[in-house]
Amino acid sequence: MTEDLVASTEQKMLALGQQAREAARRMAQASAQAKNSALSAAATALRDHRARIITANDEDMTRAVEKGLSGPLRDRLLLDDNRVAAMAKGLEEIAALPDPIGQELARWQRPNGLDIARVRVPLGVIGVIYESRPNVTADAGGLCLKAGNAAILRGGSESWQSSRAILLSLQQGLAAAGLPEAAIQMVPTSDRAAVGIMLRMTEHIDVIVPRGGRSLIERVIAESRIPLFQHLEGICHTYVDGAADLAMARRIVLNAKMRRTGICGATETLLVDRKVAASHLPVLVTDLLEAGCEVRGDASSQAVDSRVLPASEADWRTEYLDAVIAVKVVEGVEAAIAHIERYGSHHTEAIITEDPVAATAFFAGVDSAIVLQNASTQFADGGEFGMGAEIGISTGKLHARGPVGVEQLTSFKYLVRGSGQIRP
Amino acid sequence: MTEDLVASTEQKMLALGQQAREAARRMAQASAQAKNSALSAAATALRDHRARIITANDEDMTRAVEKGLSGPLRDRLLLDDNRVAAMAKGLEEIAALPDPIGQELARWQRPNGLDIARVRVPLGVIGVIYESRPNVTADAGGLCLKAGNAAILRGGSESWQSSRAILLSLQQGLAAAGLPEAAIQMVPTSDRAAVGIMLRMTEHIDVIVPRGGRSLIERVIAESRIPLFQHLEGICHTYVDGAADLAMARRIVLNAKMRRTGICGATETLLVDRKVAASHLPVLVTDLLEAGCEVRGDASSQAVDSRVLPASEADWRTEYLDAVIAVKVVEGVEAAIAHIERYGSHHTEAIITEDPVAATAFFAGVDSAIVLQNASTQFADGGEFGMGAEIGISTGKLHARGPVGVEQLTSFKYLVRGSGQIRP
Repeated sequence: MTEDLVASTEQKMLALGQQAREAARRMAQASAQAKNSALSAAATALRDHRARIITANDEDMTRAVEKGLSGPLRDRLLLDDNRVAAMAKGLEEIAALPDPIGQELARWQRPNGLDIARVRVPLGVIGVIYESRPNVTADAGGLCLKAGNAAILRGGSESWQSSRAILLSLQQGLAAAGLPEAAIQMVPTSDRAAVGIMLRMTEHIDVIVPRGGRSLIERVIAESRIPLFQHLEGICHTYVDGAADLAMARRIVLNAKMRRTGICGATETLLVDRKVAASHLPVLVTDLLEAGCEVRGDASSQAVDSRVLPASEADWRTEYLDAVIAVKVVEGVEAAIAHIERYGSHHTEAIITEDPVAATAFFAGVDSAIVLQNASTQFADGGEFGMGAEIGISTGKLHARGPVGVEQLTSFKYLVRGSGQIRP
Repeated sequence: MTEDLVASTEQKMLALGQQAREAARRMAQASAQAKNSALSAAATALRDHRARIITANDEDMTRAVEKGLSGPLRDRLLLDDNRVAAMAKGLEEIAALPDPIGQELARWQRPNGLDIARVRVPLGVIGVIYESRPNVTADAGGLCLKAGNAAILRGGSESWQSSRAILLSLQQGLAAAGLPEAAIQMVPTSDRAAVGIMLRMTEHIDVIVPRGGRSLIERVIAESRIPLFQHLEGICHTYVDGAADLAMARRIVLNAKMRRTGICGATETLLVDRKVAASHLPVLVTDLLEAGCEVRGDASSQAVDSRVLPASEADWRTEYLDAVIAVKVVEGVEAAIAHIERYGSHHTEAIITEDPVAATAFFAGVDSAIVLQNASTQFADGGEFGMGAEIGISTGKLHARGPVGVEQLTSFKYLVRGSGQIRP
């Protein structure tokens, strides 16, 4: 790319950022009613323009085939009647959530009579960088809108036409409600340089949410000058404790690994307490093998079944996102915690136990966003937590941790009411 | 500096970071009692080692004189009996605060029976970069300790010996309570390269708190790869509305500007509604001039008194931190908000008014960490908010906004209790 082109991309991005900042100011003052009617109108527009959206998606799909995109990637990209309907329904569900803005989070009085309230306000401008799923355009745009923010969306080049068609419906919804269309914008060019520029726009973007595969997230982590809500990977563990109920452990392990293997909350490593290695491990391993899961184990696990492959050191650090699991026998809950702290990604871990002491130790010792007792790691999801939709899961410890829903896309300010107080 | 020296500094910093991370793991499990006895023991040690600390400070002061440090800088550096006693008392006050760790921030049940709790946990490792005030060593170290974090402190080279002497007392306190001494560490070298290395230690440090002048903060913002709790400046405004009580406005404006001119919550710009320019402005300007404040005004303000100097565009953007104020007449509350949004630093702003409509507009329209009605901007302080001590004020919108106290130095995790639930 020539220097002129870079300069022109830079200028376009700057203009986009200024419009987003200005729109964010107006969105911060928008009423719940206005935001909700924008979401409803956008849902209606998506349904009305279904044919146009699917035509745009056809163009993307044709190019995907030409480019030789893999089957799973093409499936992520595909839009049909059902998927458009699901996006519209998603926006209506976001509209139905309580409005977080203006909520009083805390309020107290000082001895000098000052009345201090901490009140929820929007975060400002949210940048979302994603890959082939065009529905992220509607989901992320809708969540940012609900929280009173402006959004700058940068979808993948594969889903370009689809995302632009969806964007038109969102902006139509905003306009119908008298809100600024610039509250949801897309980066105007698919060239990769735009992402680099976006990641340095500290004046115009308050937080970046990257959604996609490892290489996208790694690039964003390496280049971003703006804080991120992100997880690099979900190396989630299920630990079957010595005091685990076997029937429950079988049900949970199978679900945690095999319900959907491609989501970040899927269990990647199974840890089993040596105390129940003889009684529980063979059954658990057989269940997994019979469900079509490849099992890679330490020596103890390999001894259980000849179909268990040897696990290498790398297996403890791998997010398979596939029907593969690593299995290890550990010496009790403290060893399980030590393994998780050494190899885990601070995402989601579960202990299966009837022993409250072991559960308490696990809850205290595991430094992950989500820690469960006697439940599947696949519950790591904003919807399952009752937060409504989520824009992603964060393994960071600042601001948002775990599912990032509407509330996590807000900030707060202090409103102090006095009657003439001066500081002594 | 040779490449070898840089490599050796890099290694030392890495070792420091690993020790801090390990200490943070242990601190996260420490009981409230252990942390509080560490703080009390550190206070006692500070008092016991008072003579040694003051001797170390003498060395720093001698070097400061040799280097020709200004009077105010030398005053910041100076430690005497009273200041050491104040540090010790500060640690005891931190010990008396409620322990934030383990607090249940929210808890709810899902229809499937899952019980979800959001529980407060430490943030991890906090980096603090400061300048000449050696007491920050005790204040920041104590706050990080209370919140169950590990701290890596990097004081200025001017206060090196003083800070090291204070550090010994803190570590003595930690040891006395059976907690790891590495929970509070100082960067082992005063060379500036260490700061650059520290700002890239994303694996070992979770958040950086820079405390100091504009050039320090600017360097940290430019170089840091780690999220920051910071404010670059406090260009705070007091707006005297058309419905302001004159007696109250006089009292507050004088206090907001002149109580202490060098703190970030000091008012730097006075905005006066044209509706009361005739009645209020002359009195307010005369008060300020008579209190020894230089007044720089727009044309309307200059017309009030010949001693008012002309304000230039730069004055609206200047944090004087001195007995100087910029004064402007504006057309009502919306114009005041527009001025603040254009020139302000999102720190602290006050409206003086008896009109609830104007106050509501100001509260909604001003996008600052702290917005006050009928009170002095100098209340922008964690102690005044009832938070106990603070490590600084943040104008960022992520995680911590406004005073950064013990609670703002924490994160949370989700603890989910089930009875065998799997995800459908």
